[in-house]
Amino acid sequence: MNPLTHFDAQGQAHMVDVSAKADTLRVAVAEGCIRMQASTLALVTQGTAGKGDVLGVARIAAIQGTKRTSELIPLCHPLPLSKVAVAFEVQAEPPAIWCRVTAQTVGPTGVEMEALTGVQVGLLTVYDMLKAADKGMTLDGIRLLSKTGGKSGDWQHPDGQRTPA
Amino acid sequence: MNPLTHFDAQGQAHMVDVSAKADTLRVAVAEGCIRMQASTLALVTQGTAGKGDVLGVARIAAIQGTKRTSELIPLCHPLPLSKVAVAFEVQAEPPAIWCRVTAQTVGPTGVEMEALTGVQVGLLTVYDMLKAADKGMTLDGIRLLSKTGGKSGDWQHPDGQRTPA
Amino acid sequence: MNPLTHFDAQGQAHMVDVSAKADTLRVAVAEGCIRMQASTLALVTQGTAGKGDVLGVARIAAIQGTKRTSELIPLCHPLPLSKVAVAFEVQAEPPAIWCRVTAQTVGPTGVEMEALTGVQVGLLTVYDMLKAADKGMTLDGIRLLSKTGGKSGDWQHPDGQRTPA
Amino acid sequence: MNPLTHFDAQGQAHMVDVSAKADTLRVAVAEGCIRMQASTLALVTQGTAGKGDVLGVARIAAIQGTKRTSELIPLCHPLPLSKVAVAFEVQAEPPAIWCRVTAQTVGPTGVEMEALTGVQVGLLTVYDMLKAADKGMTLDGIRLLSKTGGKSGDWQHPDGQRTPA
Amino acid sequence: MNPLTHFDAQGQAHMVDVSAKADTLRVAVAEGCIRMQASTLALVTQGTAGKGDVLGVARIAAIQGTKRTSELIPLCHPLPLSKVAVAFEVQAEPPAIWCRVTAQTVGPTGVEMEALTGVQVGLLTVYDMLKAADKGMTLDGIRLLSKTGGKSGDWQHPDGQRTPA
Amino acid sequence: MNPLTHFDAQGQAHMVDVSAKADTLRVAVAEGCIRMQASTLALVTQGTAGKGDVLGVARIAAIQGTKRTSELIPLCHPLPLSKVAVAFEVQAEPPAIWCRVTAQTVGPTGVEMEALTGVQVGLLTVYDMLKAADKGMTLDGIRLLSKTGGKSGDWQHPDGQRTPA
Repeated sequence: MNPLTHFDAQGQAHMVDVSAKADTLRVAVAEGCIRMQASTLALVTQGTAGKGDVLGVARIAAIQGTKRTSELIPLCHPLPLSKVAVAFEVQAEPPAIWCRVTAQTVGPTGVEMEALTGVQVGLLTVYDMLKAADKGMTLDGIRLLSKTGGKSGDWQHPDGQRTPA
Repeated sequence: MNPLTHFDAQGQAHMVDVSAKADTLRVAVAEGCIRMQASTLALVTQGTAGKGDVLGVARIAAIQGTKRTSELIPLCHPLPLSKVAVAFEVQAEPPAIWCRVTAQTVGPTGVEMEALTGVQVGLLTVYDMLKAADKGMTLDGIRLLSKTGGKSGDWQHPDGQRTPA
Repeated sequence: MNPLTHFDAQGQAHMVDVSAKADTLRVAVAEGCIRMQASTLALVTQGTAGKGDVLGVARIAAIQGTKRTSELIPLCHPLPLSKVAVAFEVQAEPPAIWCRVTAQTVGPTGVEMEALTGVQVGLLTVYDMLKAADKGMTLDGIRLLSKTGGKSGDWQHPDGQRTPA
Repeated sequence: MNPLTHFDAQGQAHMVDVSAKADTLRVAVAEGCIRMQASTLALVTQGTAGKGDVLGVARIAAIQGTKRTSELIPLCHPLPLSKVAVAFEVQAEPPAIWCRVTAQTVGPTGVEMEALTGVQVGLLTVYDMLKAADKGMTLDGIRLLSKTGGKSGDWQHPDGQRTPA
Repeated sequence: MNPLTHFDAQGQAHMVDVSAKADTLRVAVAEGCIRMQASTLALVTQGTAGKGDVLGVARIAAIQGTKRTSELIPLCHPLPLSKVAVAFEVQAEPPAIWCRVTAQTVGPTGVEMEALTGVQVGLLTVYDMLKAADKGMTLDGIRLLSKTGGKSGDWQHPDGQRTPA
Repeated sequence: MNPLTHFDAQGQAHMVDVSAKADTLRVAVAEGCIRMQASTLALVTQGTAGKGDVLGVARIAAIQGTKRTSELIPLCHPLPLSKVAVAFEVQAEPPAIWCRVTAQTVGPTGVEMEALTGVQVGLLTVYDMLKAADKGMTLDGIRLLSKTGGKSGDWQHPDGQRTPA
């Protein structure tokens, strides 16, 4: 069997036929982080407490980003998301901010790409808001944590979750 | 001075005023990778040689993604990109695909976010096309490599470039 | 109970989970007006009769606007609209143009925001087309008139409808 | 002279030719409000102080909305915004939230529509977040306050500004 | 009966009510071509074999284009596509490239417009990539080949299919 | 010289560098038609005169479509259009509707793709509004008529203009 399902028998890219797949509840969770200097992280934690809510802005960007997934990823099916939640966690050492996105739909295809897109847009927005202080920040460890629903069943990343529960 | 330029004196998010900044040539380069199992990487390298051009699809997605940056990142200024180039490099050990995006504009603001968005969308598209084979792939090391132009001048990441020249 | 359903128990914004809600027919009607000088209104009524169909252009903009609701309003669920109708009414005294939008879907969430977005984009388009003659026009009285369907049941604005039947 | 510049001599809609107009700094300010019950307003003021930052979310939506203006308003020219700022003011009596948006560009056309679109999207987002508590809220008094730059020169609304300075 | 279903009894454009229509499998196939000089066509066939994959890029554009149909065509309903496939065929004499797009959904409305939009965006992308060599290329014969599903039943173009099977 | 400028020396697609090109006035004109049965055409001409303004809706769609060109065509540069005009002509024999779009910008790249995209979206919208009466309509003869401005200078299609002056 060809494991590259996004290509047909002639090797041409296509949007896979999901017409005959049943609507089921699909849940996907993804996470990732942005690493930065301790002094940069301090700007965020001070901001959350008082002025300049970096993570509040990034949360909205992440939610909005999940809705644009099928416009960004060429072979993704458009789908109506039924839930999106975004959690940020500040890690003191080594200094980083973790982002975890949970996406849901009731439909014939999974929402893994939506969850991953949300993480990326959320972390990129953090980068944007802090880059005047620190251009060298790095996004790391962006990956799918789990998915449930659909014919292929449930799946969990073998390395487990790195974001604090 | 407040290093969080995206917030005003009251701590409210705003799109920074660049009306008085001169138009100059701005260049930004960003990179990042997606790590995967060796058997997954083999699907890509076989595809590039024959059927199923994973990286060709991802390159188009990355270019298209750079154009959507200001829609995705709330406080980014919209700007007319004057060049976008995307390079992929296959790394055998540890198995990974690297993506490097160069973005340019002639204008009052930089294109760092556009280059980073291109890298992220390019790598996410690789993930999408390979996820039927390997859901556990991880995106790592996404960061700005360099920027030139503008009042703040040139900048290079102190850790240097990881993608093969 | 927290009446701000768009925030979770920690006060963080999220897109509410509607995965378990049943698909039902949802209808929402919204209205609003743009007030202008009598001489400006005359330009519109002359246009509709002959050249320059201001309201025809605004109707298309309103319909197109309803489809962009979930891109504009951060916590709105994307949904497939099953009907959109736009009515304009010219009011001679005091001079104004009223816009009423009816939106429908069959799904787990309501279409109140879609109807309101349609009214706003329709009225803004009228403003745009007339602003060379009169920059001082004001948009007023934009509100939901009624909604039906869903668990919370039917609702009608206590003040009734201001647009002519 | 035909005051409906958005229609040509045959009465057909077109996007007006601005090719020969000089690039100048353009500033536009618009305002408007959403009226609600006092008990609904209390939910917002409590949120700003602690959990559930309604106005923070609406501010991001307003900024993002200004960037979509030329997609929403058919005859608007696309333009690169050089600044967007959004201010919200809570008015106790009669209970309402005011929104004021300042938009800037350096170019051949004005940004009045961008400022007005920002006000509308900002107020609609407030509506969305509070509608579980109060569906009867009304958007009122949305209008241009001032514009500067361009051949037609400066303009101020004769009724003055209603939002608190 | 008024055959212009996109207008109501008053002659006003609206998005037709499909709320009561059943979800069925809908399939539409469309085709069209771009005619060019033989020397221009040679650039494409050489590219496909080696460097510069014109048709690979156009295929991705066509797939992405189908997803934007309801944003482009004012009275189209937004719908979740369940399959999109794009085939290109090179015709030596007279020199042309044919594009055929198959679109599917499970829903209350057809996907004819999505298939046609895919053909157009695919062919336009071919034009864009070849226009440095030949600005005089012409797009021809863009039409619906067949549709199945829905109350109006199946339909095939009386002139048959021109693209090679 | 490689005439496929959208591919680099390695044959990879890229967005061509226009950073060093001067801003000049660029004008492009494109045309095309949709062929239909005489009885279908009669529905349009009756509509224009009285109810159901098919061409008025299609004109707005064409203008809006030009603004989306760089989102649809992967290697197109985003650019600020400074003028868009759309003309429709009804041709009695053989029955067809012609569409001609003029696009302008002041910038470093041409607007040929914008003019062509406008023609296509305009004609597709006509198809959409008439397809309940006639699914067999065909889009034909879509091509660039002329372009002016830029280093490559002026160009006119050797076959001349088919739309009535």
